[in-house]
Amino acid sequence: MRNTFGHLFTVTSFGESHGAGVGAVVDGCPARLPLSEADLQPQLDRRRPGQSDLTTPRNERDTVRILSGTEGGMTMGSPIALLIANADCRTEDYGELTRAPRPSHADYTYKTKYGILAAGGGGRASARETAGRVAAGAVAEKLLQMRHGIEIVAWVSAVGEIEAAAPDLTELSRTDVDATPVRCPDLTAATAMATAIRAVRDDGDSIGGVVSCVCRGVPVGFGEPVFGKLSALLAGAMLSIPAARGFDLGSGFAGTRTRGSINNDAFEMRAGRLRTRTNHSGGIQAGISNGEALLFRVAFKPVSTIARPQASADWDGRATTVQFKGRHDPCVLPRAVPVVEAMAALVLADAALMAAAGR
Amino acid sequence: MRNTFGHLFTVTSFGESHGAGVGAVVDGCPARLPLSEADLQPQLDRRRPGQSDLTTPRNERDTVRILSGTEGGMTMGSPIALLIANADCRTEDYGELTRAPRPSHADYTYKTKYGILAAGGGGRASARETAGRVAAGAVAEKLLQMRHGIEIVAWVSAVGEIEAAAPDLTELSRTDVDATPVRCPDLTAATAMATAIRAVRDDGDSIGGVVSCVCRGVPVGFGEPVFGKLSALLAGAMLSIPAARGFDLGSGFAGTRTRGSINNDAFEMRAGRLRTRTNHSGGIQAGISNGEALLFRVAFKPVSTIARPQASADWDGRATTVQFKGRHDPCVLPRAVPVVEAMAALVLADAALMAAAGR
Amino acid sequence: MRNTFGHLFTVTSFGESHGAGVGAVVDGCPARLPLSEADLQPQLDRRRPGQSDLTTPRNERDTVRILSGTEGGMTMGSPIALLIANADCRTEDYGELTRAPRPSHADYTYKTKYGILAAGGGGRASARETAGRVAAGAVAEKLLQMRHGIEIVAWVSAVGEIEAAAPDLTELSRTDVDATPVRCPDLTAATAMATAIRAVRDDGDSIGGVVSCVCRGVPVGFGEPVFGKLSALLAGAMLSIPAARGFDLGSGFAGTRTRGSINNDAFEMRAGRLRTRTNHSGGIQAGISNGEALLFRVAFKPVSTIARPQASADWDGRATTVQFKGRHDPCVLPRAVPVVEAMAALVLADAALMAAAGR
Amino acid sequence: MRNTFGHLFTVTSFGESHGAGVGAVVDGCPARLPLSEADLQPQLDRRRPGQSDLTTPRNERDTVRILSGTEGGMTMGSPIALLIANADCRTEDYGELTRAPRPSHADYTYKTKYGILAAGGGGRASARETAGRVAAGAVAEKLLQMRHGIEIVAWVSAVGEIEAAAPDLTELSRTDVDATPVRCPDLTAATAMATAIRAVRDDGDSIGGVVSCVCRGVPVGFGEPVFGKLSALLAGAMLSIPAARGFDLGSGFAGTRTRGSINNDAFEMRAGRLRTRTNHSGGIQAGISNGEALLFRVAFKPVSTIARPQASADWDGRATTVQFKGRHDPCVLPRAVPVVEAMAALVLADAALMAAAGR
Repeated sequence: MRNTFGHLFTVTSFGESHGAGVGAVVDGCPARLPLSEADLQPQLDRRRPGQSDLTTPRNERDTVRILSGTEGGMTMGSPIALLIANADCRTEDYGELTRAPRPSHADYTYKTKYGILAAGGGGRASARETAGRVAAGAVAEKLLQMRHGIEIVAWVSAVGEIEAAAPDLTELSRTDVDATPVRCPDLTAATAMATAIRAVRDDGDSIGGVVSCVCRGVPVGFGEPVFGKLSALLAGAMLSIPAARGFDLGSGFAGTRTRGSINNDAFEMRAGRLRTRTNHSGGIQAGISNGEALLFRVAFKPVSTIARPQASADWDGRATTVQFKGRHDPCVLPRAVPVVEAMAALVLADAALMAAAGR
Repeated sequence: MRNTFGHLFTVTSFGESHGAGVGAVVDGCPARLPLSEADLQPQLDRRRPGQSDLTTPRNERDTVRILSGTEGGMTMGSPIALLIANADCRTEDYGELTRAPRPSHADYTYKTKYGILAAGGGGRASARETAGRVAAGAVAEKLLQMRHGIEIVAWVSAVGEIEAAAPDLTELSRTDVDATPVRCPDLTAATAMATAIRAVRDDGDSIGGVVSCVCRGVPVGFGEPVFGKLSALLAGAMLSIPAARGFDLGSGFAGTRTRGSINNDAFEMRAGRLRTRTNHSGGIQAGISNGEALLFRVAFKPVSTIARPQASADWDGRATTVQFKGRHDPCVLPRAVPVVEAMAALVLADAALMAAAGR
Repeated sequence: MRNTFGHLFTVTSFGESHGAGVGAVVDGCPARLPLSEADLQPQLDRRRPGQSDLTTPRNERDTVRILSGTEGGMTMGSPIALLIANADCRTEDYGELTRAPRPSHADYTYKTKYGILAAGGGGRASARETAGRVAAGAVAEKLLQMRHGIEIVAWVSAVGEIEAAAPDLTELSRTDVDATPVRCPDLTAATAMATAIRAVRDDGDSIGGVVSCVCRGVPVGFGEPVFGKLSALLAGAMLSIPAARGFDLGSGFAGTRTRGSINNDAFEMRAGRLRTRTNHSGGIQAGISNGEALLFRVAFKPVSTIARPQASADWDGRATTVQFKGRHDPCVLPRAVPVVEAMAALVLADAALMAAAGR
Repeated sequence: MRNTFGHLFTVTSFGESHGAGVGAVVDGCPARLPLSEADLQPQLDRRRPGQSDLTTPRNERDTVRILSGTEGGMTMGSPIALLIANADCRTEDYGELTRAPRPSHADYTYKTKYGILAAGGGGRASARETAGRVAAGAVAEKLLQMRHGIEIVAWVSAVGEIEAAAPDLTELSRTDVDATPVRCPDLTAATAMATAIRAVRDDGDSIGGVVSCVCRGVPVGFGEPVFGKLSALLAGAMLSIPAARGFDLGSGFAGTRTRGSINNDAFEMRAGRLRTRTNHSGGIQAGISNGEALLFRVAFKPVSTIARPQASADWDGRATTVQFKGRHDPCVLPRAVPVVEAMAALVLADAALMAAAGR
């Protein structure tokens, strides 16, 4: 199973829920960039469990430690190894799992492929694996901020049937997003979303939703016109997040219903350079960033782990009822926000170095 | 710009609209597989322009020739070089392009990045590049059919606002799909779609839509649980197709509106193995195929090249009107069907070899 | 079998002795570089069979054609497909091969691994495969010349026991090297080498030797300190040439017999920059070029195909005598010179782009 | 700088001399292989400094810890993160380095390329980096032993002018090699080597030599016929070891002086399969292992760090004398033995998985 992502700016992720910890090795980060744990911890804090009553009560501090690659608070151009020790390792009630695979969970495919019934979190399919990505993504963000002034902000734009109003993309900040625990900057929608999440939680169920993401300050020229389209790289990155089931860019699926004369983004001169009047392209044309903000959406299914009993079958095919008694998130969306940002940062940092190489 | 796709089963694509031809080198195809041009030509014929009044009148025969890698109609395990000579090279009326970049087309980003105003088709951003993919995909399909009995069938499931009824996925064949030139097996919808396409064509406009795809016979165990999720690989592959703007898998975006108790796929014993009663997962759980049919959708925007005059700006930012007088497709969907199938085949062939290596 | 070489400047090689031709797709070459067939043909002419009575009488014209990637004599940044059609395809006397594998030839391992007894030249193990590398290498050389003024010159420094005197490395040109068909610039040694080669040829035997290579004008900073050491990349590239069995850099194997105080290269200021007084390092320190000329040697075994009868065993293990009646080179060294140059150019072009990306 | 090695069985190395530690992440190791720290420690003990009076007195315990990828002493198919904490971090006398680059050391090229004067050990160019490789190599060895019964044994075959007699390659064990601290199984030569090393040490100098390596039990079919020749992979791996300057395989450089009729390895039936009578090929024909033992040599230069004052130049080009007062190895050869074995294991484990994928 490949655990390395990227071509020039790469991250190699490791770790499980129930060992020493999870982490990542970031390779290809240029030398002489200021970097310390304080740059990485905020995003880990946004991802960690136990933040509010909307997420799993499982409590991990998720404190990150830089093991290599920096000296005196500066990067050295060498691999940056990051370790997040596992803290709250008390054994969940996973005994059930040995008897029958959970519906739509990793249990069945993972065990069939690798012959391993990784205790508890589905081994590397566990969402805990994303802590390593978030730490690595924060390194990538630092590079993008310092070199290009790029800002990446994701938010929860839908939970179940509840859709948020579109925010002002030129101004939206993480502070705005974090104003509510649901991480939706539309406060009216946020209230409704929180109510819906609590309802499914109390019902032993889960609910899906959509994370939207804007990347401001991306210069013209990231991405490539064939297999390395920036849209393709983003799509691949986003669909690699646990529970992600869809991706679209700019006007996306909705734009398929319109005509070219409406969907096309006309050029105009603005502030000294060619800009587009609209941004139905989501900042990418022919796979290459066009200088407008990147804008995309990621669909997350309702998490498969629910507290209710579910009719299913055991490993031998006998009809049975499975019920998971451990702690889980009724809605993964609020905690998915920093993961989407991390994957976007990893894609953009890699694209930035590729562009520097003329690719 | 990277023109190689895949890890173990790879395709390196080459060629432009206006040179000797387009093609691909397929590497990693096992030895002793029967293969001749006759295996490849049908999909190229489905992709080529000039098939019906719904597509561009530009007429290319797109005859493929195998330059290497086979002997006596059998593969040798060595790279299979494929060449599709360019035929209808009469110069289009591309003079306009030198004056102003077309809205939402490759012109602006390609020129800014590479310093090249590739005559006509946008250089490698031209849709003609996909002929190489289709030829390579047909090689991949041959491998998948011979080794695993895998069948891949894509179809047009939406054009503009018109959505087709869901076909019987266990039976749907390419013959069904090709029953109408619009490649939609719902004949009522197909008629409406054809009417809509002719309307936008006559209006000098273009229209978008959705291609859906089913892959039957994929065994349990293709794909990986982290960065190499089969869903991530498919998403990246599909978004690398020109004009693609979105992807979702199984219940996808629609599934985000439901609850886990509804969206989860319960297991049951069927024909001697664990199967799922529903397939909201689209055949992939935790990034690994679960033995059910893969099912995904790809959103295509209305193509940016339209015949109408469009208000925009020239390279110097002066407001102007651009009008493209060449030949183009009013709706790319019918011709995108074999391209989606090809990219699916390339992903699955690579995943098959990776799985054989235990990855 | 992987047929792609490199990370950012890549070549994908294809073709066999007995199909339509051999060739390569060069990807990652920057746009707007002047390039035509005339830039590529000279090195192919130096590699082709039938150049003199020292090489195989098999006569191939090896005319290269650029299929894609250029327009008006300039590169476009897109993949450059190169095709060298097979000409002299009369079937050699390869019937013998079906009976017993030739000693030290590809027959045994290739057949056992791939199940293929590629007619004649050992399939992709055939030396004819190197024509694609030479064409691709010439593209790389063009880039290196235009961007960095790099010059690469290889020569035959030993044939059997005969060793050439060291040439003046600051002046040595390909014209000097081509002064004799043996491609050794030490004319006295060249005469002795030619005599030795004719003697083994008349004896139905073959003889080995050493190709040395100097690369002038390589700036400081190509290559990396860990797995991507420039020395490691060169070693891997050179050992991928058919019949290559050894590589050393700078003082190499001889330098292992000395002491650090003698082998170290002291720095001094020369022409405004830090230079080394000696160059025992062969231009590479800690895997990174130091601005001095690269200097390395490649050992080539006596080619395994000889005209004499050889005692061996057939596929079933029965003792037998094998005798190859086809045409072959008694000494591969003169024709290996442009292949060594090509592989050096491919390594350096890739390292140049990697360095541009800050790697 | 790339710190990942391999295609399917990969190692990502990290760490410097003066941070928290060095380590590696091994990815692609199959599940359900018994593995614990006890499998890894012995090779680290053979590599660590301070083993005898022939090596640097710098004393590191080099205790390895498995951070992830195993559970209950078994691999899980997930990435195996290995950490070797830095212990003896007392600051060496590296003040000198800030004034002038050491001759033939990493100082000049590393600083020029990355802008970093990594304190002391040359950053990632430090030989300490190889501890991560040795730990990872031990994982690879475990896989090779369990699956294929492969044994890898390297030894010191030359120090300076002193060459050891060839050992019995079918029997040679690490116990034999470790009989003397110089790691040369020819005890007479070993005594002379130890004397020579003490002499150069007392002289404040260093001395080079050759490590030879045999790999027994490699099945037919590892490696590929073009760029992925097993010989090319080994050459690249070996030249990536600090201070390595040359590589040859089988009869190698010496074999270039003979004729094909002598150098060719005739086949014969032995113990039920085709074997070769001689092994001048070093176990590899046309890039593919032929079932005989792999046999190759690696040349190591005398280490550049010596205690004597050396005439050189400072960063501004002013002539000066540099003298390194820290602790160093007068001869790197004894400690290079497990590093060569580790790199061989990493190449073979990767080749084993590639072969399983039919590559």
